[in-house]
Amino acid sequence: MERVESHASFGGRQEVWKHASTALGCEMKFGVYLPPAALRGEHCPVLYWLSGLTCTEQNFITKAGAQEHAARHGLIIVAPDTSPRGEAVANHPGYDLGQGAGFYVNATQEPWAAHYRMQDYVADELPALVEQHFLATAARGIFGHSMGGHGALITALRHPGRYRSVSAFSPIVAPSQVPWGQKALTAYLGADRAGWAAWDAVALVKSASERLPLLIDQGDADEFLAGQLQPELLQAACTAAGHPLTLRLQPGYDHSYYFIASFLGEHFAHHAQALRG
Amino acid sequence: MERVESHASFGGRQEVWKHASTALGCEMKFGVYLPPAALRGEHCPVLYWLSGLTCTEQNFITKAGAQEHAARHGLIIVAPDTSPRGEAVANHPGYDLGQGAGFYVNATQEPWAAHYRMQDYVADELPALVEQHFLATAARGIFGHSMGGHGALITALRHPGRYRSVSAFSPIVAPSQVPWGQKALTAYLGADRAGWAAWDAVALVKSASERLPLLIDQGDADEFLAGQLQPELLQAACTAAGHPLTLRLQPGYDHSYYFIASFLGEHFAHHAQALRG
Repeated sequence: MERVESHASFGGRQEVWKHASTALGCEMKFGVYLPPAALRGEHCPVLYWLSGLTCTEQNFITKAGAQEHAARHGLIIVAPDTSPRGEAVANHPGYDLGQGAGFYVNATQEPWAAHYRMQDYVADELPALVEQHFLATAARGIFGHSMGGHGALITALRHPGRYRSVSAFSPIVAPSQVPWGQKALTAYLGADRAGWAAWDAVALVKSASERLPLLIDQGDADEFLAGQLQPELLQAACTAAGHPLTLRLQPGYDHSYYFIASFLGEHFAHHAQALRG
Repeated sequence: MERVESHASFGGRQEVWKHASTALGCEMKFGVYLPPAALRGEHCPVLYWLSGLTCTEQNFITKAGAQEHAARHGLIIVAPDTSPRGEAVANHPGYDLGQGAGFYVNATQEPWAAHYRMQDYVADELPALVEQHFLATAARGIFGHSMGGHGALITALRHPGRYRSVSAFSPIVAPSQVPWGQKALTAYLGADRAGWAAWDAVALVKSASERLPLLIDQGDADEFLAGQLQPELLQAACTAAGHPLTLRLQPGYDHSYYFIASFLGEHFAHHAQALRG
């Protein structure tokens, strides 16, 4: 582990670390915000942010305005990169597959299987690393945006008891049923759709053993709403399964960080209630 | 005037416009945030933000977290680019001269004089345009960062009565005395230092006809503090002239937007007090 950035921020510190990832077989970077409480020596809960297509560990830490909220609530924020990286790692010319587009799954197909194990990275390796190196409690929350909203939902649903809270902005809720997801799942997992259900929030919610409440904000002017996101599919699945969901359509908002920033304070309040309440 | 971006943000709207600038002789872009009050039809005061070296109109609007504060205080924010732009506009290979480094002066030397009239642009053309096209009152404030902190200070000091409030983050206060400023002023204004005083806050404050209070925040871990910024020169000049200055050294903070975001709320409160108080 090597610290490659450190900036004072809202009385705490925004850092970026790099490390050799065992799960991914490459060097990875992640952002970590340490709130003032952590700098004073208190152990703090950790809120994991998963970013969307094309992002690195930088987008959320520079554009969302998260540090003010984390400082106020005494939460550590961890924001990993969105895929394995490097010249030795398989890639694809499209923005929606390969580097920058890991989809938070464990790939089984070549040429992806060697490195694309983002689910193991975000659910296991990264929390273990964070809880070893920083003043972190074992109270964990997870949230994200778009592909990362999908990542947050499936990671929480796949690991009952591991997260106390989950939320998403503009998530891909049904990758099995939309073009972004179908392209990625076909490449990473193969054409047999039977294997896709374990990576699809709409499918997972049907058999969830833990009814962790889901909070989702979605802009109704989002250019990807009808084609890629379709939150009504999750709403129907939650209604059928009796899974608690708060889905809010925010009028006029698009898919950008301007949308995320506008409602991020409410997501922090949701997570802080579960993590510190 | 053509709107090239529009995003809902904190109940208001973050827009980017482009237009043919008369002062600069090229096409320019600027960001404008319209708070909820403006969308409801109320006229609002305008706070101008001037960015630092290498920036465009994008940096402040994507990284500072300004929209939340502007929404709360009912202020329009206008964030122009930092120089004239385009293939027909003179440039320089260094990051600290030419495009992205206009220093908010009116150049008199070749090859710069044809387009580099940023002072006319930010002090005259842009406010006239803004007050014509948006629901803006004539109450104006101005602030900025680094080269843009210099720009905010000199623009306010050169135009008594035009701004009700001014503040700066990590400003270049004495361009005549530091490498960034000496390089730029030599290029834009010529080697005769007699002409530099009109573009140097430390010089301007000595003869200011209006004693507009200056608010400055400066990180004490700023990598440019000793070499380029030297706020103590402005403090000495203000003390000698009896000019009101609040200069705050913020321990541990660097030159980045993490620093700006951390104290931006206090600067908004300062401006809102003058513009709406």
